[in-house]
Amino acid sequence: MENINRLISHIISRVNINLDPVHMDVEPLVRNTVSLEKMTKYYAYYALSMGHPWYFSFKESNLSGSYFMGRCEVDRSIIHMSDIRGDELKPKGTVVNSGSRATELYQDETIQITNCCLIKTLVHNNSKNTETPEFFRILNTVAMHYSNIHGTTTEGVCLGAFATADLSVMRNCVLGDFSYVQAEDLSRTIIEPGRVWIKCGTSFEFDYTYPENVVEKYVSWTPDGKLTGAFSDFLKNRRSDFLPVYDSLAIEMPVPVPESAFVSRYCVVKDDCTIGENTLVAQRAYVEDTDMGIGSNAQENSFIVSSSLAGRDIIAHGGKVIHAVLDEKVFVGFNSFLRGEEEHKITIGSGSIIMPHTIIDADEPITIDDQTLVWGYVTCQEDLAFQSMPLSEFSTKKSFCIGRLTFNGSGAEFVEAFQHRIEHILEENGADFDGSHETMGHSQKTQRVSYNLFQPYLGGEEEGMFPAIVVGSSS
Amino acid sequence: MENINRLISHIISRVNINLDPVHMDVEPLVRNTVSLEKMTKYYAYYALSMGHPWYFSFKESNLSGSYFMGRCEVDRSIIHMSDIRGDELKPKGTVVNSGSRATELYQDETIQITNCCLIKTLVHNNSKNTETPEFFRILNTVAMHYSNIHGTTTEGVCLGAFATADLSVMRNCVLGDFSYVQAEDLSRTIIEPGRVWIKCGTSFEFDYTYPENVVEKYVSWTPDGKLTGAFSDFLKNRRSDFLPVYDSLAIEMPVPVPESAFVSRYCVVKDDCTIGENTLVAQRAYVEDTDMGIGSNAQENSFIVSSSLAGRDIIAHGGKVIHAVLDEKVFVGFNSFLRGEEEHKITIGSGSIIMPHTIIDADEPITIDDQTLVWGYVTCQEDLAFQSMPLSEFSTKKSFCIGRLTFNGSGAEFVEAFQHRIEHILEENGADFDGSHETMGHSQKTQRVSYNLFQPYLGGEEEGMFPAIVVGSSS
Repeated sequence: MENINRLISHIISRVNINLDPVHMDVEPLVRNTVSLEKMTKYYAYYALSMGHPWYFSFKESNLSGSYFMGRCEVDRSIIHMSDIRGDELKPKGTVVNSGSRATELYQDETIQITNCCLIKTLVHNNSKNTETPEFFRILNTVAMHYSNIHGTTTEGVCLGAFATADLSVMRNCVLGDFSYVQAEDLSRTIIEPGRVWIKCGTSFEFDYTYPENVVEKYVSWTPDGKLTGAFSDFLKNRRSDFLPVYDSLAIEMPVPVPESAFVSRYCVVKDDCTIGENTLVAQRAYVEDTDMGIGSNAQENSFIVSSSLAGRDIIAHGGKVIHAVLDEKVFVGFNSFLRGEEEHKITIGSGSIIMPHTIIDADEPITIDDQTLVWGYVTCQEDLAFQSMPLSEFSTKKSFCIGRLTFNGSGAEFVEAFQHRIEHILEENGADFDGSHETMGHSQKTQRVSYNLFQPYLGGEEEGMFPAIVVGSSS
Repeated sequence: MENINRLISHIISRVNINLDPVHMDVEPLVRNTVSLEKMTKYYAYYALSMGHPWYFSFKESNLSGSYFMGRCEVDRSIIHMSDIRGDELKPKGTVVNSGSRATELYQDETIQITNCCLIKTLVHNNSKNTETPEFFRILNTVAMHYSNIHGTTTEGVCLGAFATADLSVMRNCVLGDFSYVQAEDLSRTIIEPGRVWIKCGTSFEFDYTYPENVVEKYVSWTPDGKLTGAFSDFLKNRRSDFLPVYDSLAIEMPVPVPESAFVSRYCVVKDDCTIGENTLVAQRAYVEDTDMGIGSNAQENSFIVSSSLAGRDIIAHGGKVIHAVLDEKVFVGFNSFLRGEEEHKITIGSGSIIMPHTIIDADEPITIDDQTLVWGYVTCQEDLAFQSMPLSEFSTKKSFCIGRLTFNGSGAEFVEAFQHRIEHILEENGADFDGSHETMGHSQKTQRVSYNLFQPYLGGEEEGMFPAIVVGSSS
């Protein structure tokens, strides 16, 4: 395992140089987290579809249980049980606008991951980086468990567990555990754990930070560097359900799947579930005893248990929804954790938006009205008074404070931006597919995906490393 | 499936042009045999080991259930459930001798398979071709079920089912079903079914042809082009045992395997088996209720059932051994079929050589003495009078005829060549491993092999084709 050790040291040194301005040392984090034994245990797999351009090239990397889709490059990186999608990569010739300026892509956009260590991290592209629009770069980055990189350039970044870097350019910065940022250039910034911060130029700024000790309950670390807390416990209990999915090449769908829907062969669908037309159940999603209404999404790493989704509901990457009843077009953002109980469910009205990184851990029945924005930490109905607001009211607001939330700028622009993004997600995922080519989305385009599986070297100095691989289009 | 159809037509036209001198048309053979539905059903897999140089490059190919090992290239070919090994490829700088002349390899030897259709075919290299020693070429070749290409250049060749081209340069020729040739340049030659022909320059020539109708009993074709006969029936009954082996990624060895032995995770070992030190059980081998004595080989596509192997026994590629008791160092050649019964076993004395393509289908107990050469078709003890000879006696013979065998040249050279090859096989496979590096062979070197699995496109015009893939060393 000499070479993988050398690779880890190399990644640590590169990331640390970048993080020097914020005095961060990722060495203990990485050393405690990366289990060398696991590195030889898994097959890496990646998906090829007819609908996406792709060109994979891996070199001096450990890929572990990766899932890739779309054009990709990886160089001297550890991609441990990560999902990386490239289904919204821009083709050559696309014109991108930056303020009043415009430029055209001189080649197909490519994901580059160089000198990174990504632990169970989801990377999902829709890059807004207009500086180098041909390259979706994740350079010198360490990303801990279940973090999300959902956008563009991140250079010299350390993402904590369940942290999310959304749509953003980040540079040599640290995102604390369970923090969420959508704020472009964050050079030399440390984002504290549990902060949810969205800054869109001068239009608006949404800024919420979890009360002290709450993040710790859900995400914390043992003295020897193991991830623990309620999120981790919840995930651990469901891990074994994924074993047969990954151990077997021939998988039978456990429920009927309409032709217009996509249920990944690398997800878990168990007990009494129904899958509606135009739904998307992505790889590593977990759906148990749940009705997935027409056009709903269970995105990567989402867990939906004993719930019902009326239709066109979105459970974004890492969202958990347990004992909940969702009316139509409810959005549950990244890594949100909605936990009801059989006796006290969470009921959410149509068109409501549960902000990314929201925790609704219900001690009693909780009901959220139609068209409501919810954020922060909610354990009872009363908490909603300071952690929610009707969208119509939010749209009338300018700068204001409520509870632990500080909002600056235009509420209307904020709500509009969110609603626009939700429509975009539904459209991209094919929720409104009517049989025509124009309405096709991922659910329809990803139907006949092929998988390639790679095993690392099992011995010698290359143990745990993968061979250099190039997979190019046969055309 | 437009492109795979185009590929098939292309291969047929290329092979047919090469076979024009012998007036052969492979079109009906290929069209009846290649099942397009199957082409999307299988994962192709190939093995990477630390002990072998490799560089895989596939382009416009269908790979189906292939197994590859060692440096390789494939171009516009159909490699359907084939095994291709490259573990004896010569490295750059190797000096090869041809008579009084010598030359040095200017690059590592590479397997090239271009415009070929190989159906369940084993390709195993130890090329004797000194004309282009850098390239192990199989050009414009159609190879039917369970044929073996075990050597070097074959250009414009059609190999029938269970046919073997051993060590040889062949050019635009046809090998009939179950024929075996080891005879260098066979340009414009048709080898009849069931002929076993070994010609070594002017040293010796061994020539046996099965009686009429016997080959038909074991290998024949239905009017609609399906392979039938006793060999095929035997294999069909065991096919389902391989399903779990191929459907699962995580395989437990069903018996204890000594550290010095290699049991492929892609073989079947069932019921009451023992695996001795230094043994080799290759992928697609089938071992049932059998003792594999120290240093024994069950090579690719061999089937060993209810038998015991005392040690250092070799069951070569495609050999079948049922209800047999083998003393030490028995060699059972390519595609031989030894079928005893519980009540009347086949007993073979030490050091005996069962020639490639021998059929011993026992109607009564059959006993073969130590140090005996056996060939041809044997159903009872009496048959051995004309189908076997003590090695010591054979070594004293010059040209002679016995039964259907015609032998010319030096019996001593023939026996010596065979015994030398058997020693080489045992050595290459690590049968005499004593812990030292010098005595390591495949059994020890192949221990920690990694597997990569590829799935073909499942839809569109590329359906059944594989993406272009390059896998190169990471060093």
